Amino acid sequence: MVLTIVIAESALQLVPRQIQSDSQIKQYAQKRGKRPNEVLLDRAFHHAAMLKLAHRRNGAQIERMGRPDIVHTTLLQILETPLNWEGQLQVIVHTQEERVITVNPKVRLPKNYVRFVGLMEQLLTQHRVPIDGEALMQVEKTDLAETIRNLESDKLVGLSILGEPILLHNLTDQIAKFEKPVVFIGGFPRGHFSEETRRLMDEICCVDRKTLDAWVAAGRFVYDFEWGIGVAQGRIERKN
Amino acid sequence: MVLTIVIAESALQLVPRQIQSDSQIKQYAQKRGKRPNEVLLDRAFHHAAMLKLAHRRNGAQIERMGRPDIVHTTLLQILETPLNWEGQLQVIVHTQEERVITVNPKVRLPKNYVRFVGLMEQLLTQHRVPIDGEALMQVEKTDLAETIRNLESDKLVGLSILGEPILLHNLTDQIAKFEKPVVFIGGFPRGHFSEETRRLMDEICCVDRKTLDAWVAAGRFVYDFEWGIGVAQGRIERKN
Repeated sequence: MVLTIVIAESALQLVPRQIQSDSQIKQYAQKRGKRPNEVLLDRAFHHAAMLKLAHRRNGAQIERMGRPDIVHTTLLQILETPLNWEGQLQVIVHTQEERVITVNPKVRLPKNYVRFVGLMEQLLTQHRVPIDGEALMQVEKTDLAETIRNLESDKLVGLSILGEPILLHNLTDQIAKFEKPVVFIGGFPRGHFSEETRRLMDEICCVDRKTLDAWVAAGRFVYDFEWGIGVAQGRIERKN
Repeated sequence: MVLTIVIAESALQLVPRQIQSDSQIKQYAQKRGKRPNEVLLDRAFHHAAMLKLAHRRNGAQIERMGRPDIVHTTLLQILETPLNWEGQLQVIVHTQEERVITVNPKVRLPKNYVRFVGLMEQLLTQHRVPIDGEALMQVEKTDLAETIRNLESDKLVGLSILGEPILLHNLTDQIAKFEKPVVFIGGFPRGHFSEETRRLMDEICCVDRKTLDAWVAAGRFVYDFEWGIGVAQGRIERKN
């Protein structure tokens, strides 16, 4: 049994073309020895440039962009876990630009954010890392719906403050009964899943009164799921 | 009832005096518009300089230094949680230089690592942030033993691969019966708690066969503890 976590509509992308000639972006890229089209968009450094982008696009859309740290912290929280060590976790990162990143469970993610940003820039420009040998991450321009269909999942659940209230323990207990469950966690800083993403889910569940950060929700889900399928118990007995 | 998490012997400090004149450090500080004595030591950027430090100090000690990301990721995982929102979490960061940082539960931590590093540099040079008004973080040069004594805890547990194997669920169930439990989590990248820190604990517990990252261990502990004292149940009922 394998749990798939989809970090959906993630705020992870290269600087969009419209603001590549912005002075803030150019300065930032130069400082890092890269070209403006080779750096990740990051609200912490590109706030002013992003405001300009807001004039050209929907403001609410801009508010959801430029937060690659969400993907980083969430991956850190779920990849180095007993569930993944036992080969029972699959992680997919879907981005707002409709890229789908598949993560090799063996990847040892950089713990340092600056190094992670460098790795993602390499991934988005080269389409895989490392460039040779076994891919640790790969990115494709594809449809999330298509990706999900290929998983042949028997249960698809999204976590959202807009969903039906349920205790997370009860939810993971239910989900642990399926063969190939998928859980969607939002990789964006505010707002909700798009209508398109919501259509992929069998149900939407709310596990706290307040929106949980993606890394908190994902970490708790993985842990509870481990418990639901008996991973924790088995591991600690083998330690004894 | 309040749970205290102590992130102990954390790899968080300013660049030590012995390598402040190192060219790698000087370049790094200049790039950031700071003086070498005002920047955090970070293995991701100061590896070569740290190797020089290894000649002057114990090599094993150097291996444990320069990882402020451990504190950042761990704080991100425990501060924005139902337990903290309900006022039942207290967080203390103890560093390898015997500084004790108290964290105001109301702090909204920078999610971006580079911003977090800037905040910690401010904290370690000014001793509090912000400089005026209510302190969100404060740092003191004090003894961890003294700090722990002042907590008047009735149960002190450390998490370590060297401890007695126990299921985390069972451990938090036991701990939830105390009034002021304290749990120690290592803030260092490798090795074990020092003898001095171990002496502060009533017991040392091991919750997986493999060492968990500090943020995974801390996040799981907080979540299980919430469950043990009924926080999750209460919150989801109020949502209904």
